Amino acid sequence: MKINVLRLDHRRKRDARITTHVCLTARAFGADKVILSGDEDKKLMENVGDVVGRWGGDFKVDYRKNSENFIEEWKNNGGEVIHLTMYGSQVQEVVGEIQNSPKDKLVIVGGARVPTKVYKQADWNVSVTTQPHSEVSSLAVFLHMLFEGKELDFDFEGGKMKVVPTAEGKRVIINDKENI
Amino acid sequence: MKINVLRLDHRRKRDARITTHVCLTARAFGADKVILSGDEDKKLMENVGDVVGRWGGDFKVDYRKNSENFIEEWKNNGGEVIHLTMYGSQVQEVVGEIQNSPKDKLVIVGGARVPTKVYKQADWNVSVTTQPHSEVSSLAVFLHMLFEGKELDFDFEGGKMKVVPTAEGKRVIINDKENI
Repeated sequence: MKINVLRLDHRRKRDARITTHVCLTARAFGADKVILSGDEDKKLMENVGDVVGRWGGDFKVDYRKNSENFIEEWKNNGGEVIHLTMYGSQVQEVVGEIQNSPKDKLVIVGGARVPTKVYKQADWNVSVTTQPHSEVSSLAVFLHMLFEGKELDFDFEGGKMKVVPTAEGKRVIINDKENI
Repeated sequence: MKINVLRLDHRRKRDARITTHVCLTARAFGADKVILSGDEDKKLMENVGDVVGRWGGDFKVDYRKNSENFIEEWKNNGGEVIHLTMYGSQVQEVVGEIQNSPKDKLVIVGGARVPTKVYKQADWNVSVTTQPHSEVSSLAVFLHMLFEGKELDFDFEGGKMKVVPTAEGKRVIINDKENI
């Protein structure tokens, strides 16, 4: 099952850090790709690409001006759509159903304004708690539940850097040389 | 077990949104309080207070200039300290041990620079994946694993607004009046 994440309505000045965190969270928690919509932001895409180069894996980041068309295409290609919103069905109620469907999944995280149409295009509108918090935490916990924690052991191949988990201090392998 | 979150090294201009997401994530995922360190930011604290007023519960946000003293006090009062860092022990390895200790917990999320001393003061340095992503997602997934998903059903009492989960659209109860 391929997992893509669509970030709606990115605003270059206001959202650069949050959207970067959305991208890095998508990657770290096992998504294959983020598609940005809203403002085009080449700097942000380069920064995320740099992280992929340093830390491995083949995560992609792409830009699509028209998110509505992109969602339609995704559905026409046989994929399903999950929209993360604090107003949706509770994640703990629907995650089993989502896991059981083998189709590719597009996970949509909102920006400032989410058009009503997105609620209708989605196969599932899903809330992670019914409280206001963050698209970053919603995405992380949704993917963590979708992968049932297996994402915590994912291996990212081909990176220049790799953390060796350690109870105290920092331990990073850089190009086969070990620095503490 | 009381859960507080300490946000290190907040910078008012650069971190306002990320720190706000840290605070709201702490609240939504069941922490009792956030303590901010770094720049004092009354506006941010007011904004978080407004969310608590609207959405309920008794989450608090506080400021302490000197985070080092605060960590020492916490430990002297019998509490334990968890520092979230991508270099720590893997969360899936240590969360059981953390759950089994009934002492109050201080969860530290870093800012731009985390002093070496914090790694030493912590009872557990904990990584949520060994990849770079976001303090917001680390905190959310850590609390989600600590509470074993029970936080998804937490009730926040006394709020003016309450979401009624729904598969499509928005359903919010405002002061006993229901608006769709």
